[in-house]
Amino acid sequence: MIVRLASIGFGNVGHALLPMLVEKADELQRRYQLTFAFSGALTRTAGGWIAPAGVSATQLLASGWPTGDIPAGAEPFSGDAQAFIAACPADIVLELTTLQPESGHPAIEHIRAALQAGRHVVTANKGPIAHAYPELLALAARQGVALRFESAVMDGTPIFNLAESSLPVTTICGFRGLLNSTSNFVLGRMAAGETLELALQAARHLGIAEAVPTYDLEGWDAAVKATIVANVLMEANLRPADVRRIGLGSEAMRREHLALPPGRTLKQVVDCVRDGDTVRVEVRLEALPSSDVLAHLAGMEAALMLHTDTMQDLVIIEGEGGPGQTAFGVIADIVTISTRPPLSIG
Amino acid sequence: MIVRLASIGFGNVGHALLPMLVEKADELQRRYQLTFAFSGALTRTAGGWIAPAGVSATQLLASGWPTGDIPAGAEPFSGDAQAFIAACPADIVLELTTLQPESGHPAIEHIRAALQAGRHVVTANKGPIAHAYPELLALAARQGVALRFESAVMDGTPIFNLAESSLPVTTICGFRGLLNSTSNFVLGRMAAGETLELALQAARHLGIAEAVPTYDLEGWDAAVKATIVANVLMEANLRPADVRRIGLGSEAMRREHLALPPGRTLKQVVDCVRDGDTVRVEVRLEALPSSDVLAHLAGMEAALMLHTDTMQDLVIIEGEGGPGQTAFGVIADIVTISTRPPLSIG
Repeated sequence: MIVRLASIGFGNVGHALLPMLVEKADELQRRYQLTFAFSGALTRTAGGWIAPAGVSATQLLASGWPTGDIPAGAEPFSGDAQAFIAACPADIVLELTTLQPESGHPAIEHIRAALQAGRHVVTANKGPIAHAYPELLALAARQGVALRFESAVMDGTPIFNLAESSLPVTTICGFRGLLNSTSNFVLGRMAAGETLELALQAARHLGIAEAVPTYDLEGWDAAVKATIVANVLMEANLRPADVRRIGLGSEAMRREHLALPPGRTLKQVVDCVRDGDTVRVEVRLEALPSSDVLAHLAGMEAALMLHTDTMQDLVIIEGEGGPGQTAFGVIADIVTISTRPPLSIG
Repeated sequence: MIVRLASIGFGNVGHALLPMLVEKADELQRRYQLTFAFSGALTRTAGGWIAPAGVSATQLLASGWPTGDIPAGAEPFSGDAQAFIAACPADIVLELTTLQPESGHPAIEHIRAALQAGRHVVTANKGPIAHAYPELLALAARQGVALRFESAVMDGTPIFNLAESSLPVTTICGFRGLLNSTSNFVLGRMAAGETLELALQAARHLGIAEAVPTYDLEGWDAAVKATIVANVLMEANLRPADVRRIGLGSEAMRREHLALPPGRTLKQVVDCVRDGDTVRVEVRLEALPSSDVLAHLAGMEAALMLHTDTMQDLVIIEGEGGPGQTAFGVIADIVTISTRPPLSIG
């Protein structure tokens, strides 16, 4: 079966996706009888192209697009994302833009348009899931298509796929976790004696912090991710602004670091509990004792501890995150959509 | 759909399974359209019964069997396991005996007979999977039925289900883990200043250590579990005797504990690497540095770190294990068999 992918956005994740699809092409065919082909792609800066006959990942990689020319057999496309979705034949639309996680726009509009056009959607974009999950989920259900987003939290680490496939009849009663790498990287460097400023420089040098890292240090990134986990796994109906962010930011990190009791480790922690009908989520700086497994995660690692009614506590730790891991989550989602009834293609 | 279960063995796991099936009956029906009923059960000491019309978990729980009478509507059965498998109508045979993990017998014979009779099999028993997985897997494939065993390692923690459902096109290149609770519980008590003898007494008191705990302390339990993980996730073809067990047992624990450098934590660790066509597995005492997340697991926790080609390192930690968690793994397996084509029932 040939599954046609149309990608909106084609940055770091798109670049990581292509070699993985090339490397895994034989296995996808052998194990799942699946061949993926790109029927189009669009970026904000390089424009787009449409190829109804499909372009293989190998061909697209060889073309060097979006810095090189569009692949052979493709027609240039110059409209906006809405026009692209309307014009590009596809089984699955990949939403891989990285714009505006604070609001979810315009990715929400991209996903809404793709679902309305009857396309399955896979996104690696946390904004739309944090801000518009109930609406988009209901729309996907009405349209009989799938909306999947494994890579929205902890890159491609199986969180949502794990809960869906491997934790049947399980109620998630709450969770705790380290979901923002930048904050915990900076706190780790400070624990090793560095100043916050030097630690931030190192984070920028590694490409994990923005020029203005307040989004990370003040807990917005963690709040966005925690909102998604609470809404999807606990059927909460939160928005990122509903998450209490307590004692965060660079001044709090400096102050708490100086006041840290011996044997404790400072981390930016998300914590979610159900209290009757209410689901409460907080992001805060915590001085973790050494008995807490979360205290020992290195700066770039992320972790989620699920409190469940069947398995008690389960922890999943991602050792290293990056575009490759995010691309893997996208592949996991497109394989799931392409193989699992009743949402399979064809 | 009514799915008939026949259970061979009905000890701690069977006792934990019943209330969970009762509690989750509505959800199983609502989410998966599944009703489970017991068509028979057999234990070594209390004999057995067969009820072709099926006995609900609620009825079986109310009967108090195997200490109470057999449930209403059931006929007593007095033959051996082979005769029981031949006589008891069932969709899925549960192999829940706990006999002879060192050899896998007679559970191997139970599973073989059930597969040959065209039954799906779910086992919580590590012996048969460690000692006879390739043969049993091939038999299940020939018979067109499923063999599932999530609870053989780390109770019901999703390991095999995770790899199968949520890590598509992923190669497991190796793993590390803490798989034997008793050893690590005892080492944790020794680190807190207790003698090995007192720590063992505490483990026995909690029901996690046998009267003669050499099976745990000398690494056999970890070797059996590591064999399963290597054979299933890495397509190795090992037997527990192929696992190198290095510097284990109570005397080594005492000696290594006394020689432990400051800041290090002693753990019984399994380690598996692929070396060309060979998969090598070791169980050994390791003095872990505090930077190793495995160093910080409490005594009763278990952990598995998978080295993968798609996600780099993923760690999954079970916070607390016991019959309830094992029973959950059995339920996860029977739900998977009952819902997933091409192996579904009916």
